Amino acid sequence: MIKKTSLLFLLIFGTGTAAFAEDPSTAELKSSIDLIWVMMSAILVFFMHAGFAMVETGFTRSKNTLNILMKNFLTVAVSSILYFSIGFGLMFGASFHGLAGIDSFFLSGRKDLGFFLFQTVFAATCATIISGAVAERMKLSSYLLLTMAMTSFIYPIIGHWIWGGGWLSKLGFIDFAGSSAVHLTGAAGSLIAVLILGPRIDKYKNGKVNAIPGHNIPMGALGVFILWFGWFGFNGGSTLAADPSLIPHVLITTLFSASAALLSSGFYSRMRFGKLDPSLTLNGALAGLVGITAGCANVTLPGSLFIGLISGILMVEAIWLIDAKLKVDDPVGAISVHGICGIWGTLAVGLFDKVHGLFYGGGAYLLGIQFIGVLAVIIWSVSTVGLFLYILAKMKGIRVTPEEERSGLDFAEHGSSAYTMNDSILPDSADYTQHNPFGKDLIERLNSLSSHEAK
Amino acid sequence: MIKKTSLLFLLIFGTGTAAFAEDPSTAELKSSIDLIWVMMSAILVFFMHAGFAMVETGFTRSKNTLNILMKNFLTVAVSSILYFSIGFGLMFGASFHGLAGIDSFFLSGRKDLGFFLFQTVFAATCATIISGAVAERMKLSSYLLLTMAMTSFIYPIIGHWIWGGGWLSKLGFIDFAGSSAVHLTGAAGSLIAVLILGPRIDKYKNGKVNAIPGHNIPMGALGVFILWFGWFGFNGGSTLAADPSLIPHVLITTLFSASAALLSSGFYSRMRFGKLDPSLTLNGALAGLVGITAGCANVTLPGSLFIGLISGILMVEAIWLIDAKLKVDDPVGAISVHGICGIWGTLAVGLFDKVHGLFYGGGAYLLGIQFIGVLAVIIWSVSTVGLFLYILAKMKGIRVTPEEERSGLDFAEHGSSAYTMNDSILPDSADYTQHNPFGKDLIERLNSLSSHEAK
Amino acid sequence: MIKKTSLLFLLIFGTGTAAFAEDPSTAELKSSIDLIWVMMSAILVFFMHAGFAMVETGFTRSKNTLNILMKNFLTVAVSSILYFSIGFGLMFGASFHGLAGIDSFFLSGRKDLGFFLFQTVFAATCATIISGAVAERMKLSSYLLLTMAMTSFIYPIIGHWIWGGGWLSKLGFIDFAGSSAVHLTGAAGSLIAVLILGPRIDKYKNGKVNAIPGHNIPMGALGVFILWFGWFGFNGGSTLAADPSLIPHVLITTLFSASAALLSSGFYSRMRFGKLDPSLTLNGALAGLVGITAGCANVTLPGSLFIGLISGILMVEAIWLIDAKLKVDDPVGAISVHGICGIWGTLAVGLFDKVHGLFYGGGAYLLGIQFIGVLAVIIWSVSTVGLFLYILAKMKGIRVTPEEERSGLDFAEHGSSAYTMNDSILPDSADYTQHNPFGKDLIERLNSLSSHEAK
Repeated sequence: MIKKTSLLFLLIFGTGTAAFAEDPSTAELKSSIDLIWVMMSAILVFFMHAGFAMVETGFTRSKNTLNILMKNFLTVAVSSILYFSIGFGLMFGASFHGLAGIDSFFLSGRKDLGFFLFQTVFAATCATIISGAVAERMKLSSYLLLTMAMTSFIYPIIGHWIWGGGWLSKLGFIDFAGSSAVHLTGAAGSLIAVLILGPRIDKYKNGKVNAIPGHNIPMGALGVFILWFGWFGFNGGSTLAADPSLIPHVLITTLFSASAALLSSGFYSRMRFGKLDPSLTLNGALAGLVGITAGCANVTLPGSLFIGLISGILMVEAIWLIDAKLKVDDPVGAISVHGICGIWGTLAVGLFDKVHGLFYGGGAYLLGIQFIGVLAVIIWSVSTVGLFLYILAKMKGIRVTPEEERSGLDFAEHGSSAYTMNDSILPDSADYTQHNPFGKDLIERLNSLSSHEAK
Repeated sequence: MIKKTSLLFLLIFGTGTAAFAEDPSTAELKSSIDLIWVMMSAILVFFMHAGFAMVETGFTRSKNTLNILMKNFLTVAVSSILYFSIGFGLMFGASFHGLAGIDSFFLSGRKDLGFFLFQTVFAATCATIISGAVAERMKLSSYLLLTMAMTSFIYPIIGHWIWGGGWLSKLGFIDFAGSSAVHLTGAAGSLIAVLILGPRIDKYKNGKVNAIPGHNIPMGALGVFILWFGWFGFNGGSTLAADPSLIPHVLITTLFSASAALLSSGFYSRMRFGKLDPSLTLNGALAGLVGITAGCANVTLPGSLFIGLISGILMVEAIWLIDAKLKVDDPVGAISVHGICGIWGTLAVGLFDKVHGLFYGGGAYLLGIQFIGVLAVIIWSVSTVGLFLYILAKMKGIRVTPEEERSGLDFAEHGSSAYTMNDSILPDSADYTQHNPFGKDLIERLNSLSSHEAK
Repeated sequence: MIKKTSLLFLLIFGTGTAAFAEDPSTAELKSSIDLIWVMMSAILVFFMHAGFAMVETGFTRSKNTLNILMKNFLTVAVSSILYFSIGFGLMFGASFHGLAGIDSFFLSGRKDLGFFLFQTVFAATCATIISGAVAERMKLSSYLLLTMAMTSFIYPIIGHWIWGGGWLSKLGFIDFAGSSAVHLTGAAGSLIAVLILGPRIDKYKNGKVNAIPGHNIPMGALGVFILWFGWFGFNGGSTLAADPSLIPHVLITTLFSASAALLSSGFYSRMRFGKLDPSLTLNGALAGLVGITAGCANVTLPGSLFIGLISGILMVEAIWLIDAKLKVDDPVGAISVHGICGIWGTLAVGLFDKVHGLFYGGGAYLLGIQFIGVLAVIIWSVSTVGLFLYILAKMKGIRVTPEEERSGLDFAEHGSSAYTMNDSILPDSADYTQHNPFGKDLIERLNSLSSHEAK
């Protein structure tokens, strides 16, 4: 057997230098398999931050591009370190009456590094959701302080309640991969943040609602594909084990809900506004992903299609309501996508859970619990983020000046520009107010000025 | 042993909450390992749709960008649902005389969800290939109907013949990961579709062939890298098991063929046209990937290099022949890349198969079978797609109007634009005919030159 | 048991067609698990080339975009084939006195295909690092010849010394995933290459240092995310086994170092230059990744944070020193990121190694060995690349003409352009001097209309 082992090792990895002292046990093997699945999933979840960055950048104006990119990158970095120091302990340390963890800070006494890594890449997500909502007007420094609060304290407490053995988990609240724990937490924080911040200049003017289109939709579309790709790790890795009876089901419900929501938002936008709207359709895919996150392991395949279908329509109506009726300025639709669909997805578990769901004969008990959970998350997130930002606004201000906002945060906060003219060389003394690219109509206007055009 | 298990679990995943009732069997472990490999591969294949979207977007004009992106996203969504409802059953249900499957619709009676997921992400690929060929002129609604036909019926029937126990598989036809089943099916459909649609306006004018360059080649290049990345899942996952004697071989032949084709197309384009042509070189990588897809598990490493080498050259000649001589307008070269190289790759198995190949002493029998398979795929795909589009064209028209085509499909079908000027705010009453991108200060400079500026 | 196996297989993959003759042994299973981990890692490392391409493209001017993309793609292709033919043998063949391998060319006598694939995707990295440093002025043909030398000879020799059983590995030199073997090798080669090439035109003029900003920072930012994503495979896969006691540690140190370096470079740039500089912050993440590559398996978590912290600051100072003081023109900062941080990361193992590190009571022996290794890599890489380029420069020239450089390498070497005006159709007779976005010729036309142009 040993010989066979060596031979196989030889076959795959080389010259036989690493022969085993003895054959591994099946328990050891199971650990390895589970580990690989969760680690690959964690890597996919990490990549979602590229998706968030592309979506938020593409769906906003080019003059704020660098600022958004920096917010996304810094969020990953800050949250990795703070979640290690404080957040993980609050979330998964020994529970203090179901309210919060009270040990395991700096991973002291913990050996479960794989689990920690998976949770760490999750933690940054909440804060990143907010970065989209507050885009184009929030100070980088204030955003960073908020991110520190989110990843070290606000999110971990909710995480403890739901996943860390806290009171919601004891009640039987089900949120498999975080429609509430991650997405609603981020979205509820986004809501109060944009209410405190106020809308972008000129967004609402003389009673009119002005559209501020994103500058690069293909970049946003790539971001959606990256998020969808990473979401398979987000939901799939939440199994925490390479369980053949669970993983394919989770991945398929994830695919189905996103697909159904993409279609429903696309066609509903067409019905509602006359055209199949690309931005709403792209957001539709994300709406379906948020919607299925709570129930991906618990609902049936038809259930996942239905959850997605509703997610897409809800999101379109929510964006319209929030943007045009309530006049709350959320540039990338984060509140609708992550909040409204996060709520719907969490409640939907109460309807479609294969065992305890209302529609499957499980009665209304679970639905009630889900409702309580949603309320708890909203109250906690709105009140803590609100209090934090209120104090911050009093102390140092959280919004850039109107001049900075008009000139763009890239110039104001980074003295630089995301795009630069083809051939430019900036002399030593140059400021960085570089010319942004392109322009079909520019060409046309040039043509009207010039008579020596070569068609 | 139990204790050791718990300890290990503790080490990796946490606080020992999930101790096993008993150690898993080696058979159970094998299932888990196979599953993980195929699921990760499926996730990679899913991501290929981001690659297709970027390639097709980058290689066409910016005025049709949103339209192409929507086609790519909707294809994934539509095909997931239709393949679940109908396609999978036709492809892998119990065979009716080797022609088609006749049960398993809506997965009824099936437990193999992992296999289903892998097949589902494959199914969307065929239709997406067509979206590139018909770009910039086909109505979104007609394209969607074609996608529905492709993923619910046209592709699954061919899939049944080749992979579902149908007549071609019984003859011994070899197409490991789908040079014919997926790529040639899509490309043959593309051919008849563009013949029915006709070329883009001004593409062929007064007997001249006009080049219509893509608007963003770096985006296309990123797409090629994403496709190549995903293709390791496409070919590698087709093993359907974590087989150490097979997977590395498959991945290496995939890498080698793409590399050889990239080089051959690059240098051949230089020889042929005087410059190393970036678009042809990028398409070269894809040509090599399509070429090796049928034989990746069956040919030797030198065989894979040779298959790639020929793929690259064939593709360059085919693009030139189709575009300039036959005057068939295929904006992204889909027919050449997926069709010509799909045929070559399928036939090459008959030459290079390590056991049955002509060059390895296996005689011409397999080559003959491969030839029959290629013919069958072409006839089926051309006739079904052709009939479908012919009827559709008669009933409702499949092409946008010349006005819509000139103004761009983004405006015509989505009332919107992919890129927006730096600073723009669209007033309430605005139509969405936004200035294609950029150039705030360029505008300012223009304004200072011109007096008839409309703000 | 057999029945259970079949049932499980049925559950996951289908109709029971592939039942096992017998249950697999635990040794066979371990081989499969290790294989999957390393293959998935290899696929991630492959994707890093997309990251390099996006970073190098985004951080340079749009007129050289196609040229850089071609260099990146061709590097992958050339190195796959040459590493197979020659490089792998020199690196991992039977050792000739610890200097070089002398068999295994064309994989003759080797069965370890998985190991080979992982090493192959590594090999292209060195050369690609150089492509960024020599961007915007080196001839494509000369770059390709250098790539051939790098991947067939220069890198494999160093690889043999460090990983192939050569003299450095016998001394006890530690470089887990290649801070020196890969990154410093590439950066040292970059240094001598840019010294021989000289700076870009107008970079240093009349004693002034001119900034030449990249044309598309969001693209560069996406590239950084892709590289970071792939780096988890780069470091994680270097375990060569699915070892639960090692992999999570490696992934976490990788995340931590990158995070710490991102923060330190960002805030240090702000302290130093008044603004949080986006380009330096993005490079900061890469600096931290390079820094931790040598020690990711050997240093503690706090150690990884410290290594990252220093990496970020070192990189900022190094870029400033190299660019502004030494007046060495390295467009993307490759020498600082991969070289300075490669040296720091390698030496840091001597400080932070959990067993042999100076700070952990292991004495200075390891630190001395690490120092010797760094010196050896620099001497070898600088002398071989220098000699090669010197001869090449004498024989055929390695730099494009000033006219070609001014017009852009895309036009000069590819007769084409990366970005094309929205609506353009190029008539048959057109040369391919398409309006580069942002518009070189647009600018010229503007200039002819306006007299108050600042060149």
